[in-house]
Amino acid sequence: MFGDLMGMMGKLKETQQKVAATKKRLDTVLVDEQSNDGLVKITLTANRTVKSIAIDDSLLEDKEQLEDYLIVTLNKAIEKAAAINEAELAAVAKEGMPNIPGMDGLFQQ
Amino acid sequence: MFGDLMGMMGKLKETQQKVAATKKRLDTVLVDEQSNDGLVKITLTANRTVKSIAIDDSLLEDKEQLEDYLIVTLNKAIEKAAAINEAELAAVAKEGMPNIPGMDGLFQQ
Repeated sequence: MFGDLMGMMGKLKETQQKVAATKKRLDTVLVDEQSNDGLVKITLTANRTVKSIAIDDSLLEDKEQLEDYLIVTLNKAIEKAAAINEAELAAVAKEGMPNIPGMDGLFQQ
Repeated sequence: MFGDLMGMMGKLKETQQKVAATKKRLDTVLVDEQSNDGLVKITLTANRTVKSIAIDDSLLEDKEQLEDYLIVTLNKAIEKAAAINEAELAAVAKEGMPNIPGMDGLFQQ
């Protein structure tokens, strides 16, 4: 039993390193999103850092519309990035964790 | 030992419920951020959902500047929200987890 525990701790350390490596890699994974009509285009990393925002000139004429477009498109982009982020990290964490039923939920945020 | 394991699983279930409750609560925690000069103001939830964006009229005259302002201010806001999110969830998760050295790192993302 003690041997199992030591092995489990070693595996946890290995998993931590894999999680760190995955987080770093997600900085290079880009997620594109745009409004339905393409007037706002946004690129995020899978770690939810905004890399670019492109606004069509026509939106500059109506500030409220522009603000609404930005909110909707950003939220779509952030959700998309979060889904990729969570799936990638959950896969790595799950692989390295002892198989305790119901533990998966702890890694989704 | 078997009793301990059952107790641990019960505690994990309880922790999962607390994590879910905390995530829900974070939807109501608002994070405000603005550009240094206040020309762009952004409000997110602590779950990184954009609630509002307010753009000063003067920024509509220079689209590139506007896009840059949005990127910088959004990233500051997203980081701030992420820090709150992680701290709150890590606190709940840690409380409910067996105390395995080095395990903390798994809950930061």
